[in-house]
Amino acid sequence: MKRVKLVVAYDGTAYHGWQLQPGRRTIEGELNSALSALLQKEIQVIGASRTDSGVHALCNVAVFDTDTRIPAEKISYALNQRLPEDVRIQSSEEVETTFHPRHCSSRKTYEYRILNAHFPIPTKRLYAYFTYVPLDVKKMRQAAVYLEGEHDFKSFCAVGAVVESTVRTIYELTVEKEADEIVIRVCGSGFLYNMVRIIAGTLMEIGRGNGRPESVKTILEAKDRQMAGPTAPACGLTLVKYDFL
Amino acid sequence: MKRVKLVVAYDGTAYHGWQLQPGRRTIEGELNSALSALLQKEIQVIGASRTDSGVHALCNVAVFDTDTRIPAEKISYALNQRLPEDVRIQSSEEVETTFHPRHCSSRKTYEYRILNAHFPIPTKRLYAYFTYVPLDVKKMRQAAVYLEGEHDFKSFCAVGAVVESTVRTIYELTVEKEADEIVIRVCGSGFLYNMVRIIAGTLMEIGRGNGRPESVKTILEAKDRQMAGPTAPACGLTLVKYDFL
Repeated sequence: MKRVKLVVAYDGTAYHGWQLQPGRRTIEGELNSALSALLQKEIQVIGASRTDSGVHALCNVAVFDTDTRIPAEKISYALNQRLPEDVRIQSSEEVETTFHPRHCSSRKTYEYRILNAHFPIPTKRLYAYFTYVPLDVKKMRQAAVYLEGEHDFKSFCAVGAVVESTVRTIYELTVEKEADEIVIRVCGSGFLYNMVRIIAGTLMEIGRGNGRPESVKTILEAKDRQMAGPTAPACGLTLVKYDFL
Repeated sequence: MKRVKLVVAYDGTAYHGWQLQPGRRTIEGELNSALSALLQKEIQVIGASRTDSGVHALCNVAVFDTDTRIPAEKISYALNQRLPEDVRIQSSEEVETTFHPRHCSSRKTYEYRILNAHFPIPTKRLYAYFTYVPLDVKKMRQAAVYLEGEHDFKSFCAVGAVVESTVRTIYELTVEKEADEIVIRVCGSGFLYNMVRIIAGTLMEIGRGNGRPESVKTILEAKDRQMAGPTAPACGLTLVKYDFL
């Protein structure tokens, strides 16, 4: 028996997120079906990050156990033949049988893209959130600084999420202007449910002039979801980097 | 009666190109329907560039005549409400009634995007052509130089296209590497049918080592479509700039 690690890229537009759900298309479901058909045995992957409905990924991670004689490195090619075109394995390799993608320290980077232009651009509509309201990138950057480091992010966690602790560490949070797009890039060891989208929604509120950059400090201290901005739409969010430490 | 010029962006994935075709979704068809409904009169636009099935645009141009009292600048907003989300007007303005987008000199820029990576990336699949065969950008650049300037591009024109002359001028043809993408950017006054895609297909052949950069000279001189490379797939092509001189 060996454990195989997959790096998985997907366009989340047509999926109800990562996690298996009966009767709905999910990334986990597609992987399980394709692997089970390929290896002719019921396979269930363990995913690293359970991305939400509509969220994209360049490099989510999944592992599974198998006694197949197909070399681990070749599984990516064979699996891509069986997956729909909006899901593509980027690599497959054998890892220690004790490796569990959710029980080891990691560093994840998400990008939230905003098209800030006069009108929507159709070729960007699936991968960036559009707003014509001008956003002040400088203010968004000033606000971002308050979120870096270790904090209780309770105000930035979806109501109803059950977690032991809402303390998380953001290693880096940057806001860059790339032509008519604004890219919020956030790197951390782990994120609460909807945390990146609530951060994006809050920074956008500040960017459009609702609240000063310093207000983020007050929002953090309140530990109250209602104090933060709205949850930004899923389409703008992509998991772009996943490193295990 | 006034003439209104529209700048139109679209994701060509779901369309059978620009030009009106009975029973098929086309960009021209969508514009005619939306305008006719908005202005409550049968409207037929005149398009600048009749892009092919699957080709994208950031800025194609269309004009139409109307006696509406809606200010020309407001038509973009009203029209976007009625268009599908993969077609978006970028601007609308009144122009001289003699302005015809195909009868005046212009400068068009197309981009052909190639994802040159080990595996396809789902979020790029609709807007870039994927190939895992490593392409030598330096060779592609050397070949591109021979195509710049005024030439008879008969070898780069789809067989069967009816045109008076196959002489065209390419002002600039560049090949850039952007992370794992290669972008071929070509600027000219006008292009023959499939010309940009045949140029892209020919440069890719040279990039993968089939033929030397200098062979492009021979291909041009032959005036024979069979001498050039294959027509590259439509998804990689986007009309990115359109200037009237």
